[in-house]
Amino acid sequence: MKTPRIFTLAILATAMSFIHAQAASENLTGSNAEKVAPGIWRVRIGTPEKFTPTYFRSAPISENGLKTVANTAPLPFQPDKIGFQTNARGCVLELPLTSSEQVFGFGLNTKLFNMGDRRVWIRPSDNPESEANDSHAPVPFYVTTAGYGVFVDSARYVSFYVGNTALVKDQVQSTENNPQVATSTTDLYKQRLLSDKIMVIDVPAAKGVDIYFFEGPTMMEAVQRYNLFSGGGCLPPLWGLGVWYRGKGDFNAKDCLNLGNQFRETHIPCDVWGLEPGWQTQAYPCSFLWNEGRFPNPEQFIEKMRGMNFHINTWEHIFVHSKSPIYDAIKPLSGNFLVWNGLVPDFGVQKARQIFAELQDRSLFSKGVDSVKLDECDNQPASPTPWSFPECSTFPSGMDGEQMHNLMGLLYQQVINEIPTSKNLRTYNSVRASFALAAPLPFVIYSDSYNHRNYVRAIAKSGFSGLLWTPELRDANSIEDLFRRTETLVFSSQTLVNCWYMKNPPWMQINKDKSNRDELMDNHAEVTAGIRKLFELRTSLIPYLYSAFAQYHYNGIPPFRAVVMDYPQDTNTWKLDDEYLVGPSLLVAPLFEGEKKRIVYLPTGDWYDFWTGEKFAGGRKLEISKPVDQIPVFVKGNTLLPMATPVEYVKPDTCFQICVRVYGSNPQPFVLFEDDGTTWNFEKGAQNQIQLSWTTEKGGQTTQQGGYSGQGRFKVEEWKKQ
Amino acid sequence: MKTPRIFTLAILATAMSFIHAQAASENLTGSNAEKVAPGIWRVRIGTPEKFTPTYFRSAPISENGLKTVANTAPLPFQPDKIGFQTNARGCVLELPLTSSEQVFGFGLNTKLFNMGDRRVWIRPSDNPESEANDSHAPVPFYVTTAGYGVFVDSARYVSFYVGNTALVKDQVQSTENNPQVATSTTDLYKQRLLSDKIMVIDVPAAKGVDIYFFEGPTMMEAVQRYNLFSGGGCLPPLWGLGVWYRGKGDFNAKDCLNLGNQFRETHIPCDVWGLEPGWQTQAYPCSFLWNEGRFPNPEQFIEKMRGMNFHINTWEHIFVHSKSPIYDAIKPLSGNFLVWNGLVPDFGVQKARQIFAELQDRSLFSKGVDSVKLDECDNQPASPTPWSFPECSTFPSGMDGEQMHNLMGLLYQQVINEIPTSKNLRTYNSVRASFALAAPLPFVIYSDSYNHRNYVRAIAKSGFSGLLWTPELRDANSIEDLFRRTETLVFSSQTLVNCWYMKNPPWMQINKDKSNRDELMDNHAEVTAGIRKLFELRTSLIPYLYSAFAQYHYNGIPPFRAVVMDYPQDTNTWKLDDEYLVGPSLLVAPLFEGEKKRIVYLPTGDWYDFWTGEKFAGGRKLEISKPVDQIPVFVKGNTLLPMATPVEYVKPDTCFQICVRVYGSNPQPFVLFEDDGTTWNFEKGAQNQIQLSWTTEKGGQTTQQGGYSGQGRFKVEEWKKQ
Repeated sequence: MKTPRIFTLAILATAMSFIHAQAASENLTGSNAEKVAPGIWRVRIGTPEKFTPTYFRSAPISENGLKTVANTAPLPFQPDKIGFQTNARGCVLELPLTSSEQVFGFGLNTKLFNMGDRRVWIRPSDNPESEANDSHAPVPFYVTTAGYGVFVDSARYVSFYVGNTALVKDQVQSTENNPQVATSTTDLYKQRLLSDKIMVIDVPAAKGVDIYFFEGPTMMEAVQRYNLFSGGGCLPPLWGLGVWYRGKGDFNAKDCLNLGNQFRETHIPCDVWGLEPGWQTQAYPCSFLWNEGRFPNPEQFIEKMRGMNFHINTWEHIFVHSKSPIYDAIKPLSGNFLVWNGLVPDFGVQKARQIFAELQDRSLFSKGVDSVKLDECDNQPASPTPWSFPECSTFPSGMDGEQMHNLMGLLYQQVINEIPTSKNLRTYNSVRASFALAAPLPFVIYSDSYNHRNYVRAIAKSGFSGLLWTPELRDANSIEDLFRRTETLVFSSQTLVNCWYMKNPPWMQINKDKSNRDELMDNHAEVTAGIRKLFELRTSLIPYLYSAFAQYHYNGIPPFRAVVMDYPQDTNTWKLDDEYLVGPSLLVAPLFEGEKKRIVYLPTGDWYDFWTGEKFAGGRKLEISKPVDQIPVFVKGNTLLPMATPVEYVKPDTCFQICVRVYGSNPQPFVLFEDDGTTWNFEKGAQNQIQLSWTTEKGGQTTQQGGYSGQGRFKVEEWKKQ
Repeated sequence: MKTPRIFTLAILATAMSFIHAQAASENLTGSNAEKVAPGIWRVRIGTPEKFTPTYFRSAPISENGLKTVANTAPLPFQPDKIGFQTNARGCVLELPLTSSEQVFGFGLNTKLFNMGDRRVWIRPSDNPESEANDSHAPVPFYVTTAGYGVFVDSARYVSFYVGNTALVKDQVQSTENNPQVATSTTDLYKQRLLSDKIMVIDVPAAKGVDIYFFEGPTMMEAVQRYNLFSGGGCLPPLWGLGVWYRGKGDFNAKDCLNLGNQFRETHIPCDVWGLEPGWQTQAYPCSFLWNEGRFPNPEQFIEKMRGMNFHINTWEHIFVHSKSPIYDAIKPLSGNFLVWNGLVPDFGVQKARQIFAELQDRSLFSKGVDSVKLDECDNQPASPTPWSFPECSTFPSGMDGEQMHNLMGLLYQQVINEIPTSKNLRTYNSVRASFALAAPLPFVIYSDSYNHRNYVRAIAKSGFSGLLWTPELRDANSIEDLFRRTETLVFSSQTLVNCWYMKNPPWMQINKDKSNRDELMDNHAEVTAGIRKLFELRTSLIPYLYSAFAQYHYNGIPPFRAVVMDYPQDTNTWKLDDEYLVGPSLLVAPLFEGEKKRIVYLPTGDWYDFWTGEKFAGGRKLEISKPVDQIPVFVKGNTLLPMATPVEYVKPDTCFQICVRVYGSNPQPFVLFEDDGTTWNFEKGAQNQIQLSWTTEKGGQTTQQGGYSGQGRFKVEEWKKQ
């Protein structure tokens, strides 16, 4: 009897059904690799399942975007090095891994960063701090410092054994690291060290799978290609980049109008106003109907809020209450298990999407709501007392509960996004779950976990996986905590203050219970002034961020990302998870409550203190401290940084007054992306590229090209050498 | 499109392949139920997998034993109430469950007792305190207070959703418990209450499964039938019921002989002496060869220890070191992943069993070793840094890693048990993992978890699942802790003192570090005297326990079990997990360190304090306190309790001198089981039943029948009315 091994494709080739057996091959040899787009290869192994992330694509591959990724390099290994085996449990893949290779990605677990030497599950849960890689948005995609990315196109709870297992080999394994008998606990565990590494991928249930390889030469190009393969990053409406506020769960129309009015009177910047479950007649589960007790006239309420320049966002989850008007129609299009006694619509079925979307449109978007918050579309951790449907659930589309858990957040986002899109409007939203190929979806992931340090890590990690994350603000332990959290929030994809359990904003009272008793802090005026300044800073950054999002959309470059993505060869960045990059030129290193100073690592090159302009040579660690209302931010040398005069909100006719900060003597040009900020017309040419450039001789110059002729969005007023 | 439901068998009958379609049916209607033995039904659903617990039976069904289970009652539901569905993930079953039904079993998780309203995984791990039901011995068998048992014949990581999920029904679900919209966390979770209950069983990978139903009328009969279906409980050799001691991991022959000699000089009862990894040349993983540095002449050492009346037990695990003589031969018969750089032999392959057993015999049993300790044959919890082989491993037999993890402990026990059995010798051992149908295997499960309270719960739980558990003693927090743990140990299936990390016995020094520095306690003589008395009590109980094990073997009655098993209708027993029953008549309610007194629940009937003879009326809670060297034990009214004069060890010619304690005026007869105590000759008739009876008029009477004519084991010296 022979030892069963994970066989190489070379051995198994005849037994497997390669659909694209004669595909072209440039740098991948072997008949089973197909180049599906520039720098992107697919290897089809066995017979893949039907319901996968590519089956439910949110957008077509961005072919134009892929052309903009100039650099390419061959993959570091050939597909005949991929081992493959099926068994009753599903299928198993074996990929090579070098011992020096650093592995990143796998979605938005907020605790894990460098993913080497561990088992990683692709399993959604409401605990993003799990050691097992559970998170609101697990993603079966990884990139390595060897300069390539790997995407396993599966909706299963795939396990990746990242260099921590060893196969039986022909030669006897080395036992040199344990020459003696172990008689103590310390000795017993020494044998765990492995001499060579492999990536083992365990795909449950499936009898085959497509694997996509994304070429480098660096992690950045691999991630760009992944994002562009996904369809390119989302472009939020301009108002989405302002400040968001969610009122208390039981607020009625009057409460919202009063507090909204107070925001305007006190000039707190705010673009989006969120309503929590209280807007509905039933929740949990949802009726998706306005609660006339709290909101007697929703249209009028929305009109008044819009009149104060608030965009309205409403909370919901997917589970359908028996009193919802769609209950009977959607029941046969739902899973066979109830959640909180509600139906679970199957968004793998077009008719279910349509019934659900029609009610959303009728109740929300057609009434003037611009945005939603999609809660609880993830799952719990492998829990003894689960609240969601079991993995063995079945759905009319043919999906089971395991597939649905991974895909639900993604499909739910699609259903919602299609409503404003059909009206030629862009939207920007909150969501509790996402998955693979999600870059085009204008949804930002949030959590209840509320650990500031982990929230910062999540911002850094989001860029590996085509995801966006908000380190939302709720209550705070201290004024310092309030400021430090708010500062991080300013440098994130969604500046969201979530007061669903608090009557007053945290700058009036940081303590939840006191807030609900209307006991405001004595120094609230002073605190409010500080927070207002931070929110104003956020609005000053909108032009810069909007351009970063345009790069996300067109070039696949994540607007928020870990430092290692830009500096993969710098070993100091391999575990650097408490600072991150924003757009092309900003390095953000948040301070945390209780820390007067911190170590910041600056990669090679010149860096400038955002606040003081002080110049630092990079390639080293720096101890830095900042006052409670300032966050350590560094601007890369030779940067043009457009800073706008603060606004309270973005109106249809808002034109940002810009001061361009000039860092270094030979700055790179910066391109402002201009369009109407709200519709999809930019896709039809209604957009401008406003290029900023600067030389010592000529000073600042602005050149513009493009086909957008509407309201000007940006006016350069000043150039300011730092 | 129709909502997919878990279909009833009635609907799916034509589509499914029922192998026993025309089987006889007494109280189960429907063509798919086969009566496989008296009171035991099999329902074959779909196409079951090959590698299941019944495929790897340890013993044939005890047909004779089943005839002794007098009571029978129909199952409370018909098999056409079992829903069944396959999908890509495996298959799903739905069974009815009434809302008042209490569910017990699922193996040896030490934290969970009453298993209702939770998701239960059948997944082995080295953490028996997991909320997910991980344990050293998960078992896909449950019993309920409705008086039946259910066994799912699968080696998969089956999930049981015990009454905590709800299917979509034709009628609208009740939402009465949440008429209002929920706007707070408290409100949000109210909806979890379910109005009716089901048992959903999720079997991964398999496209079908056999389910076995065991009739009542009570849980006891259902468990008896399950144990007898397994082959009947094990009957340990008499010496196995004495005291066990394991010396420190690095002890050499001289260390063992010295300490063994000291035991004899100080008259510490002890029958079994255990050697930890240090006996081998390599561990971890194992060479299975004697380390001549520590044990220059193993035969001579063993002979000397046997001369002092110690039976020798040796530690090992399954993983094979490259320096083991069987490495090359067993390599092609091993799994494809290494553990601690060692091979994982596939005991699903006869040749692998044989190669492995031959070395065990050569190194151990043929040299006079009588017993082994099988370590680490379980798995870790779903771990980010696993030490064992992955679930996606493959084995030459065709098993995968998931099946092997569940079956490994069981198969390993079989391989070992067959060695002495082939020499017509019985053995009794320690093992870290077990599984379904394990009752016939003479192995006791232990753990590193070392929580006294949980250890007590495990003793109570073991009886639901055909398992044995030892609350082994190591070091102690205090003298009180030492005594309380030892007391529980005396009333358990294996009185094991495990000093693998301690040089001196805990009665000489409770603290590990001091023990290893030979700093003995000042009062060690006094403590030793107290522990000696407890060990003497253990040896006094051997005749009673041996009879209880005979009942386990012949009638399937667990010798150690929860109170609820004998009193299922008494709602006070449904969560009673800190006291347990031993044999027919003893109720044990251990005290824990720091507790001067405790509440004991006595079920209906009379009970007598074991120590004082004081009589208590049952059906009530009692506050009880005991001195530090006494454990609360109660004797059921109308009991004849045989107590032996203490012995230091059981020799081939040991005859227990018995005093029969008489409780109540109309005691039930008690049958002592007598044989040679070491061989399998009892199966060929070499056994006696010595019946003790007592009436007020005639006093005590002894009648004997049977075909055993060897050394008398029991001599009744005295009858003592309490």
